[in-house]
Amino acid sequence: MDAPWIAELRALLGPRGIVEDPTRLFPYEADGIVLLRRRPELVLLPRTTEQVSRALKILHRERVPVVARGAGTGLSGGATPVEGGVVVSLARMRDVLELDAVDRTARVQAGLVNIDLSLACSKHQLFYAPDPSSQQACTLGGNIAENSGGPHCFRYGNTTQHVLGLVIVLEDGTVLDLSEPRVDPLGYDLVGLFVGSEGMFGIATELVLKLLPKPATTETLLAIFESLDAACDATSDLIRARHEPSAIEILDKLTIQAVEASVYAAGYPKTAEAVLLLDIEGSEVEVANTVAGIEPLVRARGAIEVRTAKTELERKQLWAGRKGAFGAMGRIAPDLYVADVCVPRTKLRELVAHTTRIAREKNLKLATVFHAGDGNLHPNIAYDRRDADEVRRVLEAGDEIMHLCIEAGGSLSGEHGVGLEKMKAMEWLFTREDLATMCRVREAWDPDRRMNPGKLIPIRACLETKQAVFRPEHATGAAKARDER
Amino acid sequence: MDAPWIAELRALLGPRGIVEDPTRLFPYEADGIVLLRRRPELVLLPRTTEQVSRALKILHRERVPVVARGAGTGLSGGATPVEGGVVVSLARMRDVLELDAVDRTARVQAGLVNIDLSLACSKHQLFYAPDPSSQQACTLGGNIAENSGGPHCFRYGNTTQHVLGLVIVLEDGTVLDLSEPRVDPLGYDLVGLFVGSEGMFGIATELVLKLLPKPATTETLLAIFESLDAACDATSDLIRARHEPSAIEILDKLTIQAVEASVYAAGYPKTAEAVLLLDIEGSEVEVANTVAGIEPLVRARGAIEVRTAKTELERKQLWAGRKGAFGAMGRIAPDLYVADVCVPRTKLRELVAHTTRIAREKNLKLATVFHAGDGNLHPNIAYDRRDADEVRRVLEAGDEIMHLCIEAGGSLSGEHGVGLEKMKAMEWLFTREDLATMCRVREAWDPDRRMNPGKLIPIRACLETKQAVFRPEHATGAAKARDER
Repeated sequence: MDAPWIAELRALLGPRGIVEDPTRLFPYEADGIVLLRRRPELVLLPRTTEQVSRALKILHRERVPVVARGAGTGLSGGATPVEGGVVVSLARMRDVLELDAVDRTARVQAGLVNIDLSLACSKHQLFYAPDPSSQQACTLGGNIAENSGGPHCFRYGNTTQHVLGLVIVLEDGTVLDLSEPRVDPLGYDLVGLFVGSEGMFGIATELVLKLLPKPATTETLLAIFESLDAACDATSDLIRARHEPSAIEILDKLTIQAVEASVYAAGYPKTAEAVLLLDIEGSEVEVANTVAGIEPLVRARGAIEVRTAKTELERKQLWAGRKGAFGAMGRIAPDLYVADVCVPRTKLRELVAHTTRIAREKNLKLATVFHAGDGNLHPNIAYDRRDADEVRRVLEAGDEIMHLCIEAGGSLSGEHGVGLEKMKAMEWLFTREDLATMCRVREAWDPDRRMNPGKLIPIRACLETKQAVFRPEHATGAAKARDER
Repeated sequence: MDAPWIAELRALLGPRGIVEDPTRLFPYEADGIVLLRRRPELVLLPRTTEQVSRALKILHRERVPVVARGAGTGLSGGATPVEGGVVVSLARMRDVLELDAVDRTARVQAGLVNIDLSLACSKHQLFYAPDPSSQQACTLGGNIAENSGGPHCFRYGNTTQHVLGLVIVLEDGTVLDLSEPRVDPLGYDLVGLFVGSEGMFGIATELVLKLLPKPATTETLLAIFESLDAACDATSDLIRARHEPSAIEILDKLTIQAVEASVYAAGYPKTAEAVLLLDIEGSEVEVANTVAGIEPLVRARGAIEVRTAKTELERKQLWAGRKGAFGAMGRIAPDLYVADVCVPRTKLRELVAHTTRIAREKNLKLATVFHAGDGNLHPNIAYDRRDADEVRRVLEAGDEIMHLCIEAGGSLSGEHGVGLEKMKAMEWLFTREDLATMCRVREAWDPDRRMNPGKLIPIRACLETKQAVFRPEHATGAAKARDER
């Protein structure tokens, strides 16, 4: 690998800032969606905005595709370099640059791990609200790319509601400093637009985020049900009764069994058909009142046991089970297809019945976890990717579930993004005009479509707005990336 | 007026759907910023999305500038047709199309008046949270154009956090239906981008909005101070002590006197130097606890009187005073310059001192109201526009205040938008690259920059991204719009 541009990048970033060895490039082939993979030519590991800017200038000149990457925990293929090129990993940019405990804001580098921000501000009794289940590993920059959610987003909203400002490096290396925290974004809301743009508008390197005061009291309530429908009904009842837990999660039987057999064992009864897990936050008296109001409601729906965590440790255990659910599924089969769909809350029960039927018809192992308050379901299918027929059935089931959600007035993504996985489904939900508008907005940021190419917008829609971008073979001397798909 | 395109519009909209008589065009010359005005050639008053689409197709073909208008209560000149052309008023599109009390969403036409939505869903114990002071008159479509705030946005966030979906008519008449309510916007967040785009990306005709459950109890607390600084300090104290009122408003002495002399008389003591007005929401016990916690804090800062509203009527009166403050200022002078700036909450006191000094130096009547919780100030200057020297001093003071806010790490708009008024100030806060990105995003929606032209982005920045758009004289037979400025 001796192309002059690679030598330039080496000089810019130093030996620890660049990965060239093909065996070390392996982990960068895919994110959490391992069905889709391609090895990048190079991985860059910059430390500063300045380095990102200088690197992107070089890659702009050489017309090399660029894919930004956080921790690679994404579940829609967003960090997979499908057109090869260079992956820019933010993993070494994890400094907390500024904590303002009075105005309750933090300025951080984009590679900071989600949980580390809450740990950093914990001494001020503050926390960062969006809490994806992968929060022990995922980066805040990745959360911004995908507009990530999490169990407590029922109360606090997705990532976009917590981003006050960004420093963004554009595809040609230009740095936009849109990082002054603002109540009302001045001018067009470029920061809001960037959140959820899946790495296609540039690379956010610094983030100004909103911090919230920790609730005085949090009570975790576990209700055990003999049927999944009953757990869904209990959810509707408690929302109708105007209770506002900060999280409303449901786990089904197969998920419970996997969790209990794993290191995340949470003390969920293995014979339960479903558990409902609630967090209730507020002042002590408020929380006690709410728990007292919720308990009879869930019992009336047939909960066979209702308990609250007695200690902080017990509380953490109950949540470790939920947050470890995806990992625990590894006990059932080597691979996991995590679907991510949304329906109006009132349609949850109906959708559950349909997904169960689909899994049965296709002989698939389905385990579902729900952010029930948001109507957001993750029907997870455990499979073995060495079994080609099973893979085919998994993908068919995924498509059928997405079609059902659209029919129910729902959406194709609650929090994981479109990426590669749902690209074709964009045409099921959006018209040609909708997609053309998205393409034009993309070109406003990246006229050559070189940032995270091949994602989110179906190629046909792209071609309609513009001639296909001619991308000369950029691997000048570099080993050609191998398409493993 | 017999140009064929005008005849087409007449046929499309009927006699009640078009205003051609120059005297009836007068009210459409400006919005709340009356210093800047120009008469449009025509006003259209469509009833449906289909009519808007067909009208925009005609105006696209004829290359006529288009300005959308809600109630004209805007305070940055956003609805002023500075390049002439046609104003599309949404005033006749005010239907509630759908209310879903279970999933808590409403689908409405864009011309619905803000307060009418809360009235429509009140029987379900729901409300629409963003509450601009003009909510008795302003339209929800206008709120979306400006990403409006209001006193209770301290708790609930600005308009953008309450918009779930939009139907948008593009400049060429294409209809984008982005109205399925979604937890996480699928694809790029075009809806989020549209909110706050000040009418420059198209016309939103239908809105899907989030409704919230009414709080069980709301207590309104009024604290009276002998100094404005003390009211600012009390605000900081109560936030530091983690109290979370839903609204934290401050009114200064001149505002109090104007209000008390007006029909909005709220029972604020006329001798007070400042009043602090708080809403505290939640369950009865929660509210009682919070009030009990706040009272000693404000007394410790020297409040000479603290009272809570005894009845709902008294509560409404206290708020009528705040919401009527701008109107009441008409007693002091015929015209009002409403500034709208933001600073970090901790800098409030410092900014107040500076604005007071500026007004004294320039011999201007300054009355300030604060959304103190958000660090959002409205320094209002009462003046007489027939006095050219006073107008000059008002504008100078406005510029000085904006510069001070930038120095304090603040922003130029809390909730009123940029429009005409703050266009030049965009260059003080944004770099050439920031503005160029905004221009390109705008062109993705409106390549000819024909929607609300001459707003938000300084002309110089526009010219840098693209050749000036050649706009042929479109007034084919129509009376040429008169520039009164």
